[in-house]
Amino acid sequence: MTVLDQTRLPHAEAWVRLETLEAVTAAIRTMQVRGAPLIGITAAYGLALALRDHADDARLEYAAGQLLGSRPTAVNLRAAVDRVRNQVQPLDPGDRAGAAWEAASALAEAEARACRAIGDHGLAILRALHDRAPERPVRVLTHCNAGWLATLEYGTALAPVYRAAEEGLPVAVIADETRPRNQGWLTAWELRRAGIPVTVVADNASGHLLQRGEVDVVLVGTDRTARNGDVCNKIGTWLKALAADDAGVPFYAAVPSSSIDWEAPDGRAIPIEERNATELREVQGLGVAGLVAAVRVGAADQPVANPAFDVTPARYLTGLITERGVAAPSEAGLLALFPERA
Amino acid sequence: MTVLDQTRLPHAEAWVRLETLEAVTAAIRTMQVRGAPLIGITAAYGLALALRDHADDARLEYAAGQLLGSRPTAVNLRAAVDRVRNQVQPLDPGDRAGAAWEAASALAEAEARACRAIGDHGLAILRALHDRAPERPVRVLTHCNAGWLATLEYGTALAPVYRAAEEGLPVAVIADETRPRNQGWLTAWELRRAGIPVTVVADNASGHLLQRGEVDVVLVGTDRTARNGDVCNKIGTWLKALAADDAGVPFYAAVPSSSIDWEAPDGRAIPIEERNATELREVQGLGVAGLVAAVRVGAADQPVANPAFDVTPARYLTGLITERGVAAPSEAGLLALFPERA
Repeated sequence: MTVLDQTRLPHAEAWVRLETLEAVTAAIRTMQVRGAPLIGITAAYGLALALRDHADDARLEYAAGQLLGSRPTAVNLRAAVDRVRNQVQPLDPGDRAGAAWEAASALAEAEARACRAIGDHGLAILRALHDRAPERPVRVLTHCNAGWLATLEYGTALAPVYRAAEEGLPVAVIADETRPRNQGWLTAWELRRAGIPVTVVADNASGHLLQRGEVDVVLVGTDRTARNGDVCNKIGTWLKALAADDAGVPFYAAVPSSSIDWEAPDGRAIPIEERNATELREVQGLGVAGLVAAVRVGAADQPVANPAFDVTPARYLTGLITERGVAAPSEAGLLALFPERA
Repeated sequence: MTVLDQTRLPHAEAWVRLETLEAVTAAIRTMQVRGAPLIGITAAYGLALALRDHADDARLEYAAGQLLGSRPTAVNLRAAVDRVRNQVQPLDPGDRAGAAWEAASALAEAEARACRAIGDHGLAILRALHDRAPERPVRVLTHCNAGWLATLEYGTALAPVYRAAEEGLPVAVIADETRPRNQGWLTAWELRRAGIPVTVVADNASGHLLQRGEVDVVLVGTDRTARNGDVCNKIGTWLKALAADDAGVPFYAAVPSSSIDWEAPDGRAIPIEERNATELREVQGLGVAGLVAAVRVGAADQPVANPAFDVTPARYLTGLITERGVAAPSEAGLLALFPERA
């Protein structure tokens, strides 16, 4: 499997070949591969890779455990690994590797279809906003990166933006820097490649821009959404939701069903990853992992806290854009679209 | 006049001698000198320096205009320059330089006294919080740097923290990184020098920490407070106020009367400085101006927006800690303490 090393972007487009279980778990842990849907797909392929040489029950359990432990918050990881494992477990060990690869491919195709559908449902929202102020582009604030880098093809939160661009609907994106790992610069990088106007701002600036009426809609992704509609996403999402609420600006999360944790009753049940202190202590390059252009500048022993995600309570959301349509942010709203989960 | 070059901190303690009007305005503009009270005092001394060689009316007006134009948001600058100018204007040109220097010194002493008084009034707030949970330190979240680096001696927002430490009341500070210029690292630097525990977090993390009950009180400074109690402060303050409000955590601004703009009816009247794009495009060193350890990492033509301040509406504040006591965040609240402004 070959992946784009996101820790090298936007400085370099370096593709990395992952051949072993260990390489896959390391790529997820170090965020060479990042974004909830992409983590899930990569882990699914990783399980298939792990079964190539031997595929007995012990190996299957070991590989699944390694992958599940690589990052804690994105539920897609668990869903993908569980799904592939459940599909291959009944099979003869000799058939497992091939079946796992097919299951991973099917998962990837399903995610790509979900992104496209989210794009279409979100496009309708952007179109309605544009109708209200046709003289200017629809101004979309986003946080972190939930574009094609984080998933496949259209991305999740950026799928409506890409679809709008395809349809000739004018959009302009404001990308939060997204400290400490600066994924906002990844968003800027991929949108500029697509010719979509994008302005980068400090995370601190988003409240001011919302307050001053410079944002029409906020679109974010999710790493795990609870059954009640609480959305866990990149740290800082919650602050933007508060500011959008105060400003009366609609705030949507793009939620492929693979990122819904039906067993989590609400956001408090979602584990929040605490990442390494060096992410803050080092001045990061604009790339993700600071492997490039990172400079260590003193304060090596300064205590820091570095939670990677936060929870936006469902009541602060305008809606959840799923592949089946826009759900009201509540258990009833989600179950109306996914009745099989009732 | 000799000032500590804050663009070099925390890497180096470099003192810079400012001998001319031009040097003073440059130091304010480039943020070698920063923090609303310190900007005011520095400008006052700058006016005195400008009058040393010739001090006719034209020179006085020119120097005042140069200083007033160096940064737009902090009202202390205008108040200090106006005050010194008004005091020396009636005098013989030959007497103006000396009188201006004396006026600047008086201003500096008044600011130091105000900081000390703010510390005492804020200490009472911290003491009451500690009484409610005596088993642990009072956990104070702050944003940007409003400590002694930003003013004289105790600082404004950090004055209660320093007074608490003097009195043996346990405090622990959480310092927001404060992108794009990382003044939170200045806060960490000065608190650690004083032996006060401090944890640095990304700006994005503060909402999560407030939501999870890990903060007892938020203390911030102000660059300009309007007559109605709207507080203009470093960009991002508004987001923290929203999160504190949602979490039911008290949120105070330390407001020396020199930073109250009695002529601004509310926050909309306050000009918001837009700073240079390079502050975002460059990965900054932990020091303020990125003169040290700043690395330019691509994206040199990426459009950015970089507002330096935002406005927290008065209704989101618990109180305004002034040198005369804690005011309710309203015009009536301020006038109760400053009746001469009615």
